[in-house]
Amino acid sequence: MHKLVLIRHGESTWNLENRFTGWTDVDLTPTGVSQAMSAGKLLKAEGYEFDLAYTSVLKRAIHTLWYALDEMDRTWLPVVKSWRLNERHYGGLQGLNKADMAKQYGDEQVLVWRRSYDTPPPALEPTDPRSERGDRRYAGLAPEQIPLTECLKDTVARVIPFWNDTIAPSIRSGQRVVIAAHGNSIRALVKYLDGIADDAIVGVNIPNGIPLVYELDDDLKPIRHYYLGDAEAAAKAAAAVASQGKA
Amino acid sequence: MHKLVLIRHGESTWNLENRFTGWTDVDLTPTGVSQAMSAGKLLKAEGYEFDLAYTSVLKRAIHTLWYALDEMDRTWLPVVKSWRLNERHYGGLQGLNKADMAKQYGDEQVLVWRRSYDTPPPALEPTDPRSERGDRRYAGLAPEQIPLTECLKDTVARVIPFWNDTIAPSIRSGQRVVIAAHGNSIRALVKYLDGIADDAIVGVNIPNGIPLVYELDDDLKPIRHYYLGDAEAAAKAAAAVASQGKA
Repeated sequence: MHKLVLIRHGESTWNLENRFTGWTDVDLTPTGVSQAMSAGKLLKAEGYEFDLAYTSVLKRAIHTLWYALDEMDRTWLPVVKSWRLNERHYGGLQGLNKADMAKQYGDEQVLVWRRSYDTPPPALEPTDPRSERGDRRYAGLAPEQIPLTECLKDTVARVIPFWNDTIAPSIRSGQRVVIAAHGNSIRALVKYLDGIADDAIVGVNIPNGIPLVYELDDDLKPIRHYYLGDAEAAAKAAAAVASQGKA
Repeated sequence: MHKLVLIRHGESTWNLENRFTGWTDVDLTPTGVSQAMSAGKLLKAEGYEFDLAYTSVLKRAIHTLWYALDEMDRTWLPVVKSWRLNERHYGGLQGLNKADMAKQYGDEQVLVWRRSYDTPPPALEPTDPRSERGDRRYAGLAPEQIPLTECLKDTVARVIPFWNDTIAPSIRSGQRVVIAAHGNSIRALVKYLDGIADDAIVGVNIPNGIPLVYELDDDLKPIRHYYLGDAEAAAKAAAAVASQGKA
């Protein structure tokens, strides 16, 4: 039996300001830092050990991992960073306020942008200063691999190859893995692991900074999953995520 | 022409307490944190860019790298951690005060332990609680690879294979490399790069948290090297390192 631990980053400055973030590289708030530290304390208290960590190339996930590893006194663990674990790209909505958009376009439209499986938000222009096309961290990618917007289906399409080619083989080889990532890259993994339908995955909300444990069999099929720590607090935090897009 | 940047970690708690540290995994002091941040600020101000970072598996070097990368807004850079970049193992002296040892054994004996090229300090017993034999981060090593003491010659013998097999090929392939490491693992590299004699390398002192830049030709032979920032401050810091072992 393998245990895989998923951690959504702690609260970011744009979570706090209720803005669409996507690939914008905003940092953690002080609350986000303590959520990350709590995640590490919980993992340590429950006796979790890891051999390998994965994260995105966005600092809110990287810092979450760093704070958690610090609390576990495991800063020396190897860490692999990949753009494939980045948050869903939010296209032209990046930087805009979720409630403002709901007032302007209606709750329903914002819910479609946030939670439709295959309808992406309006795309960024490649020349938009918010585009990542000139960002050195993506210099190794083909231009068409750098999204100008994504629906969850697009995020799944770039997360799952990384799971299959890189993460899953490391777990099969016996390494104990922790992944610090984002609401939608974790949702992509959860959808794939649990075989959740396209229209049901939108109802799955991942709270910030609470370790989500998957117990996997030898074929990496989930046996069960659970949040570490206070179950009620995890459920409340997930419900708060669900309600962010209301006017 | 390649530029390689070496950074010795910022001041650690045991630097401050004037204790022999070696492989003991002590953290940075607040001064050490600001030295690490200054290193990052300097590198950013001077326009340095990197593709790859190396560090040891000891948190004073890892944290130094993290703080520097934070200041450069380059947390997303790939980081490779290796025990081969660890500080020289100080054997039975680990944890003991340098000045106390000088009072007890004389300045000269302590200088031999600190600066002789091929005379190691007394070895730890494998069962000594200070030994790293049970430490999970070294579980992949053969027991005889985990030192019980080291002279600088021993440190050179395990640092240079990592340079030749891993770091040098990455530089040759065009990657811009920064290494956050320790006084003696950096000294090992400097000895090798500059072809410094066994009896002369003891006079080379690496200050904490000041980026040391090596300009290398296509064969990775040094063209010149220099400290970034205030040259006088770097010289004073190096002199302070040299005088730590006096009663």
